[in-house]
Amino acid sequence: MRIKLINPNTTRSMTEAMGRCAREVAAPGTEVIAVNPTMGPPSIEGYYDEALATPGLLAEVAAGEQEGCDGYVIACFGDPGLYAARELARGPVIGIAEAAMHAASVLAPGFSVVTTLARTCGMAWHLAERYGMKRFCRNVRATDVAVLDLDKPGSAARGIILDECRRALAEDGSDAIVLGCAGMAELCAEIEDALGAPVIEGVTAALKWTEALVALRLATAKRGDYARPLAKRYDGALASFSPGAVELAA
Amino acid sequence: MRIKLINPNTTRSMTEAMGRCAREVAAPGTEVIAVNPTMGPPSIEGYYDEALATPGLLAEVAAGEQEGCDGYVIACFGDPGLYAARELARGPVIGIAEAAMHAASVLAPGFSVVTTLARTCGMAWHLAERYGMKRFCRNVRATDVAVLDLDKPGSAARGIILDECRRALAEDGSDAIVLGCAGMAELCAEIEDALGAPVIEGVTAALKWTEALVALRLATAKRGDYARPLAKRYDGALASFSPGAVELAA
Amino acid sequence: MRIKLINPNTTRSMTEAMGRCAREVAAPGTEVIAVNPTMGPPSIEGYYDEALATPGLLAEVAAGEQEGCDGYVIACFGDPGLYAARELARGPVIGIAEAAMHAASVLAPGFSVVTTLARTCGMAWHLAERYGMKRFCRNVRATDVAVLDLDKPGSAARGIILDECRRALAEDGSDAIVLGCAGMAELCAEIEDALGAPVIEGVTAALKWTEALVALRLATAKRGDYARPLAKRYDGALASFSPGAVELAA
Amino acid sequence: MRIKLINPNTTRSMTEAMGRCAREVAAPGTEVIAVNPTMGPPSIEGYYDEALATPGLLAEVAAGEQEGCDGYVIACFGDPGLYAARELARGPVIGIAEAAMHAASVLAPGFSVVTTLARTCGMAWHLAERYGMKRFCRNVRATDVAVLDLDKPGSAARGIILDECRRALAEDGSDAIVLGCAGMAELCAEIEDALGAPVIEGVTAALKWTEALVALRLATAKRGDYARPLAKRYDGALASFSPGAVELAA
Amino acid sequence: MRIKLINPNTTRSMTEAMGRCAREVAAPGTEVIAVNPTMGPPSIEGYYDEALATPGLLAEVAAGEQEGCDGYVIACFGDPGLYAARELARGPVIGIAEAAMHAASVLAPGFSVVTTLARTCGMAWHLAERYGMKRFCRNVRATDVAVLDLDKPGSAARGIILDECRRALAEDGSDAIVLGCAGMAELCAEIEDALGAPVIEGVTAALKWTEALVALRLATAKRGDYARPLAKRYDGALASFSPGAVELAA
Amino acid sequence: MRIKLINPNTTRSMTEAMGRCAREVAAPGTEVIAVNPTMGPPSIEGYYDEALATPGLLAEVAAGEQEGCDGYVIACFGDPGLYAARELARGPVIGIAEAAMHAASVLAPGFSVVTTLARTCGMAWHLAERYGMKRFCRNVRATDVAVLDLDKPGSAARGIILDECRRALAEDGSDAIVLGCAGMAELCAEIEDALGAPVIEGVTAALKWTEALVALRLATAKRGDYARPLAKRYDGALASFSPGAVELAA
Repeated sequence: MRIKLINPNTTRSMTEAMGRCAREVAAPGTEVIAVNPTMGPPSIEGYYDEALATPGLLAEVAAGEQEGCDGYVIACFGDPGLYAARELARGPVIGIAEAAMHAASVLAPGFSVVTTLARTCGMAWHLAERYGMKRFCRNVRATDVAVLDLDKPGSAARGIILDECRRALAEDGSDAIVLGCAGMAELCAEIEDALGAPVIEGVTAALKWTEALVALRLATAKRGDYARPLAKRYDGALASFSPGAVELAA
Repeated sequence: MRIKLINPNTTRSMTEAMGRCAREVAAPGTEVIAVNPTMGPPSIEGYYDEALATPGLLAEVAAGEQEGCDGYVIACFGDPGLYAARELARGPVIGIAEAAMHAASVLAPGFSVVTTLARTCGMAWHLAERYGMKRFCRNVRATDVAVLDLDKPGSAARGIILDECRRALAEDGSDAIVLGCAGMAELCAEIEDALGAPVIEGVTAALKWTEALVALRLATAKRGDYARPLAKRYDGALASFSPGAVELAA
Repeated sequence: MRIKLINPNTTRSMTEAMGRCAREVAAPGTEVIAVNPTMGPPSIEGYYDEALATPGLLAEVAAGEQEGCDGYVIACFGDPGLYAARELARGPVIGIAEAAMHAASVLAPGFSVVTTLARTCGMAWHLAERYGMKRFCRNVRATDVAVLDLDKPGSAARGIILDECRRALAEDGSDAIVLGCAGMAELCAEIEDALGAPVIEGVTAALKWTEALVALRLATAKRGDYARPLAKRYDGALASFSPGAVELAA
Repeated sequence: MRIKLINPNTTRSMTEAMGRCAREVAAPGTEVIAVNPTMGPPSIEGYYDEALATPGLLAEVAAGEQEGCDGYVIACFGDPGLYAARELARGPVIGIAEAAMHAASVLAPGFSVVTTLARTCGMAWHLAERYGMKRFCRNVRATDVAVLDLDKPGSAARGIILDECRRALAEDGSDAIVLGCAGMAELCAEIEDALGAPVIEGVTAALKWTEALVALRLATAKRGDYARPLAKRYDGALASFSPGAVELAA
Repeated sequence: MRIKLINPNTTRSMTEAMGRCAREVAAPGTEVIAVNPTMGPPSIEGYYDEALATPGLLAEVAAGEQEGCDGYVIACFGDPGLYAARELARGPVIGIAEAAMHAASVLAPGFSVVTTLARTCGMAWHLAERYGMKRFCRNVRATDVAVLDLDKPGSAARGIILDECRRALAEDGSDAIVLGCAGMAELCAEIEDALGAPVIEGVTAALKWTEALVALRLATAKRGDYARPLAKRYDGALASFSPGAVELAA
Repeated sequence: MRIKLINPNTTRSMTEAMGRCAREVAAPGTEVIAVNPTMGPPSIEGYYDEALATPGLLAEVAAGEQEGCDGYVIACFGDPGLYAARELARGPVIGIAEAAMHAASVLAPGFSVVTTLARTCGMAWHLAERYGMKRFCRNVRATDVAVLDLDKPGSAARGIILDECRRALAEDGSDAIVLGCAGMAELCAEIEDALGAPVIEGVTAALKWTEALVALRLATAKRGDYARPLAKRYDGALASFSPGAVELAA
């Protein structure tokens, strides 16, 4: 099967790192296509970044439908454009926050999210609620590490994140950690070893959850809210996004 | 004061109709600037349309900040881009669903939303929950009238909508109606007369709610989630949206 | 238009202060009638006070209907008698807690209420829930300042309240403050300047929200729970409240 | 022990009927004092009636404290003045809606409330939520029987109520009935026999629940929200309610 | 009437202590039969213990039906097997957590549970939610006292529990305490005296609540979820539990 | 990897059918061990059956730990003993209701559960709430088909279930179906073809979700609620379940 892993920001090095993590856990027959849009923000650290990352992400989903992709992972912890992507896709589309929270909820009575900037904590709470995971989410903690610093060699980011995870276990009544940024994917094993508690990272969790659903031959419901976009002509700079074209091609 | 009323779809006639409705209720000193983006979908009937309408909407907010706008109304019942717009704006930004639901909740113990297509009902429920209005929202009803038909002379749309409003009062235990589409703004008085119950229409409600907050000198919180977008360089077709430029200009 | 601002306690000086605040923000054509009952408690600091303030408040609403009032503000943060008042009134009736919380919810992702006595915190939480605002209300904080001390020259009350607001922003994850007592109306601007974050005060918020709804020609639903009280003869000391009389006069 | 059963409306015949029901189930050592205020509405059919019934009710609680009452039942399904009464009382104070819902929740997975007028359904839903019983309350059904008709010989009220109870069991997924009006107390056994399902009536449920708590020597918490009213001088027609007097006497 | 008080663990001394507490508050005509199963865990400190305590508990209920018991108390704070027991019993079956939380909710605006081991806190939160009591439950606090130590002479357990209760009142915004373990029943009066706030202990609360419902002739609904177990033949070591036998005997 | 699929009832033919379904979707390296206890009920149709099925189920988990199982599926839609099983297991333990609801929630905005007997609908609602899936679960529908009839050749069960699924899509506002009984596993593909909407069956969903988590090397949190049972000696007929033995072996 072919699963497209879409990093919605434009930072290629993050995409590659995520691709490596995903391929490491993918089943033998699974092809992981890790991509990122060429337009939009290099990192997503707020609602505005998220809104502008979404068109590029959706273009990747639309292309994926042409390329015969069986499922999609949206690899940013805010799960931007998730419902819009579901309108485009036949197969399953899963956000990494969604998959990580689902996984954490079956492994522990409660978890804490440890994320980057304080301004994104509200987004994580919104998602926890939307997915029904608020009852499991004991806290969302910011580390004030910038997304792109996670990637930098010699950065203090790892130590800061590990400390925050320790505080989460000690103070939040949580028994598991959800890493709240796709950029933290490569830190997961290291942190888990240090903590001795489950540490869930969304890129790999979403890859496996999508793979599972595709193996079950389950697809996105095409009635109701996730039905294909109605065909219409968009104007101006976004004309190429007109859903008419998508329909014809599909 | 100057309030920018942004119709996030590109249909000029709808923008003009909304502008007329808003100006009719605006206070003497209030200048209503009714605009729509030139890029994006001509109507918003799903999550995909919404996602692609958002960049154009945000460009209008960014421009509004330069033009000295004191507040903004997002004039589509899905309130697209609301939180992203709040990151850009100094003054208040209110969605028409948000304002209409707030108003309905102080006028009646419960209301029903009467909207256009069934596929948008889920969006209305999401908003009701996000705004804390789910406890007042007794039902969301679709009429299967297309947004752009509302505008067409001689369309059966009015009768269909009125009938659905009657059913809502009779069957939902609701005592007020919220019209779930900006395109219904001009029908409001007519329906209210026919029903003998409060009918709330979001364009005018949001205009007055924004006007009120501006008069109170209240502005969007600039700490936390609604802080300005962090300055960064966006790539490709969306480079002009880079928040750095916004910052410099502001 | 004519809006009646009812301070439900009998302290005339508070009524006057609220009237001043309201008139400062009222639109040119709005007449603000600030009144208080002559019977009942001089301050409202618990459920018992609230219950005994309600008859006087309702008498003012009943009188307002005769005087041609277009809307009402209930100017005590517990919003006493709100639903009963809605049964009496044709126009909108808004409580100051209700208006302040609505306003705060569109300006910030979360707010804290800073109020007077600890024993009234439970009331504020009840209201937050009733209005659907619990998801925005991050904390309710008491200052242990008595309501009537707010008014006293040279009181330490201002400093104490400002300190509590600062702690709320620092500790609660809130980005805006709601002042939880009508007696704090005159402190609002001063505290906002000191904090650099939105500070919402209910008397002015409710005045403008009511004014907005009246301008939109929206009225209280007269079906269902807020229908006029059924005509009947009350007994004893409260006979003058018999809704029959209200009906005849209306 | 001495338990005061307060019918908050002024209709003596209803008080007597409730007293009979309560005495039938009271334990040997329990004295039931069934009273009603001499001021206020003869029936409670809305928020306005409720607000005006509350002072008379509270006067009875204040008197009860002098008379050595050990606990109180508020015998109207809207549980008017419950929290205010708790400020006055040393012993437990229980509303009949509260007791009936608690009882129903331990006997059946879900219950329906069958009440009088449609306009009071909203009140029942509010109480179900306030008491945490919304998850057990499957529906609130009105019969459009007026409270005072329940008492009239030869009235069709009984048949109408029984039919509505039957519909509740058949249509709501409920397995028990809560009778939503103190005036229905005497119908309880008859309806239960006809239905073959638990029918809970609040007057007797509250009497026994109060009796149980008094036997356990449990009393109302006198810290926090239910602390005694602060001593102060009330004005005008309600001066006799000044909590100072209550304090001195207590 | 005859009420069976079932301690679901096998520790006879705890059963006897609970029996003493229950008999002290029982009404003159109430016979309290305090029992415990002879199979299963000697204390319940987790979900596994709970699952293995349940068969023995259910055997006691089944026997009780033969012995003419009118109601049952499940005397372990996790309320194990509550719904299964209701399937077997004609009369009411009440858990001690359920009764204690109901009682606390009518006596105080909020309560804290003070329990034994930290690993059982999650169970208490689950119950608070299931019973609708989460809105009243401000905190669940562990003392890390083992259940069986409560019973030991000279143990430091009492002091530790009292200290935790004090912290609960000071830090949780609670005005009452619920003791979260049946083994704490005999400490109740002592702690209440020391705290000056209501301390609710479930064994006695459940006994009185059950007694009250039996006096009201209320029984478990025998439609729906709590209908008798369907007759069938169980296999192996648990064959004696086959509901067919129960049916025949009933 | 080795995943133990435990049918908690004693009906061998159902176990075999589930095993077949699971093996069909398992990844190449996954060994599926499908078992059922030899003690307990032959079908689970209520809380009593569930309670008596749990010991046998837990014995299978305990044995699985000795046999080197990497994860467990509890293959009954009530997910009996789930938390107790997590105390015993090192690897993930997933219930089929849990997995099916998680899957449905990522594929459709809302789903309906179609199950067997009406008396088990309440159990499904409880689980939906416990897992945070209530917001996605639009309805739970009974077909009044007995569990063991599903298996019988020539039974009308299939037609009845398909009809109920059709009604669910038409009337509940659902876009996907969750089959609410492990015995329906083999009907899944057939129903999905007939409906043209996603039909999720828990046995396979749970198998793949468990397989995914094991592949991610994620395990059950061993701090907090899911820590191993404390070592102690159980009495009587259940002595062999004493967690001491488990501890020694682990």
